Amino acid sequence: MEQHDLQVWSSAHLAQVEQALERWVGGDAPAGLGQAMRYAVLDGGKRLRPLLVMAAREAVAAADGDAQHAVGYQEAALRSACAAELIHAYSLVHDDMPCMDNDVMRRGKPTVHVQFGQAQALLAGDALQALAFELLTPEDAGVPASVQARLCRLLAHAAGSSGMAGGQAIDLASVGVALDEERLREMHRLKTGALLQASVMMGAACGHTSATAWTALSAYGAALGLAFQVVDDILDVTQDSATLGKTAGKDAAQDKPTYVSLLGLDRAQAQARDLLDQAHAALGQTALPDTRALAALADMVVSRSH
Amino acid sequence: MEQHDLQVWSSAHLAQVEQALERWVGGDAPAGLGQAMRYAVLDGGKRLRPLLVMAAREAVAAADGDAQHAVGYQEAALRSACAAELIHAYSLVHDDMPCMDNDVMRRGKPTVHVQFGQAQALLAGDALQALAFELLTPEDAGVPASVQARLCRLLAHAAGSSGMAGGQAIDLASVGVALDEERLREMHRLKTGALLQASVMMGAACGHTSATAWTALSAYGAALGLAFQVVDDILDVTQDSATLGKTAGKDAAQDKPTYVSLLGLDRAQAQARDLLDQAHAALGQTALPDTRALAALADMVVSRSH
Repeated sequence: MEQHDLQVWSSAHLAQVEQALERWVGGDAPAGLGQAMRYAVLDGGKRLRPLLVMAAREAVAAADGDAQHAVGYQEAALRSACAAELIHAYSLVHDDMPCMDNDVMRRGKPTVHVQFGQAQALLAGDALQALAFELLTPEDAGVPASVQARLCRLLAHAAGSSGMAGGQAIDLASVGVALDEERLREMHRLKTGALLQASVMMGAACGHTSATAWTALSAYGAALGLAFQVVDDILDVTQDSATLGKTAGKDAAQDKPTYVSLLGLDRAQAQARDLLDQAHAALGQTALPDTRALAALADMVVSRSH
Repeated sequence: MEQHDLQVWSSAHLAQVEQALERWVGGDAPAGLGQAMRYAVLDGGKRLRPLLVMAAREAVAAADGDAQHAVGYQEAALRSACAAELIHAYSLVHDDMPCMDNDVMRRGKPTVHVQFGQAQALLAGDALQALAFELLTPEDAGVPASVQARLCRLLAHAAGSSGMAGGQAIDLASVGVALDEERLREMHRLKTGALLQASVMMGAACGHTSATAWTALSAYGAALGLAFQVVDDILDVTQDSATLGKTAGKDAAQDKPTYVSLLGLDRAQAQARDLLDQAHAALGQTALPDTRALAALADMVVSRSH
């Protein structure tokens, strides 16, 4: 899939996701909380996690003759796409708070706690996490209960202490500490990689996916997740804040270990290309007829400028 | 059930819950995070929510001839008991933080952020919420997927912006504001009532529960949830900090509306008794053979001293 085709494919899917988020986020919440939740989620972000969910579901759907559950699976994928994005959004809200990274700018606008106060930011993050699991377990949407349970399992594991929150805790403990490459990789595997990989697997859970495809998609998700972080570290030193939409040069300023500080810029870039190759190779192992969108997303992750 | 019998019944069930929490909480987490999670959850608290789950499950199990799923339902109830407690525990950790209630003492010991720092407290709360949903969706524990999905649905709804987090947001916005009784009730229904009621319903979801019993248990949970908060407001003015294990007189000091500030002590006490009557009446409507533990828990909620 060419860069242009990916854009066409993405726009169609993102329109659906944005509409769903618009409908599902914060509307029923008490006024202040609902506003903060919507501010944190709506019109912003690359929506990489939703796109991974959608691309993975399409890849497994193309190999799946089960018409009976097709509508339910599609609904499950849309809900998974939103749920993964909500977990990501809540983590940014909490991460930006003064007791964590103390950041005042995100996606080109003031962070949630700057706009709504710390207490509301804390609650909004908490409520977004709960909403993710609420979206995954609709009472009447034709999503099989076994799929609902599996989606919750994948997301909860990726979000918690064995995933994102665990990675953030290692990050906290690593300021000013010299990590070796293995420890740095472990931190990022949890902090960013787990949710990206889970997004792929949630898409794969929205259909009858063979064990072969499941394993290969898991390898794809792991490689892509790590590549994302390596590129993030590179962009933090090569781009300015305006391009990133957030504060650039933050890692070095906070004396945090990164791939660039550990390996130097050249080797970090070589590693990103290497991980991209691994992601493509894994797609080749899925035995799925069409993984072009997943392949294009991996390319995009490595070639992005923000 | 007499007070003494309730104690015997509770001890047996709590031993199971404490053991399970000991096994499930924080063991796999990176060191600092795991410690903070365990500190927030282990050896402390009345464990009212777990007891409500267990009592409700026993009440519906006594009327349920489905032996095939008995072990799975029991496992589901234990996991639900722990999950409800984790949501409660995480809400206390976040509530105590400086940007919320700024409390330094809880269950007779320093609060999590005092002990581990604010960043770790924030992450521990986040990770405890995720763990709750992870516990509810085990891969191989004999819990039917339909039960897993329903438990997640009940808990997510009770924890999020239509439940606990929503109530806290109303609470935030109510400092120094004169609420009428209806608005105060709505705040407490969400902030404390939703999770207590959900605990009852999660227990009821661990078995084949008739629609009649479901509706009546829901009314029981609502009455008990509100009674709990009315009594909390009463204890805040009638007990000292040592008895409560947390700061007494806090509501008045922070100029928060309470049942006592709104109704006066006498009418607040009358209302607690009235809600207790409603809870008992609802149990009478369940058509379940044995609701003694649920009845005794309601008595305990209203007669407690902390």
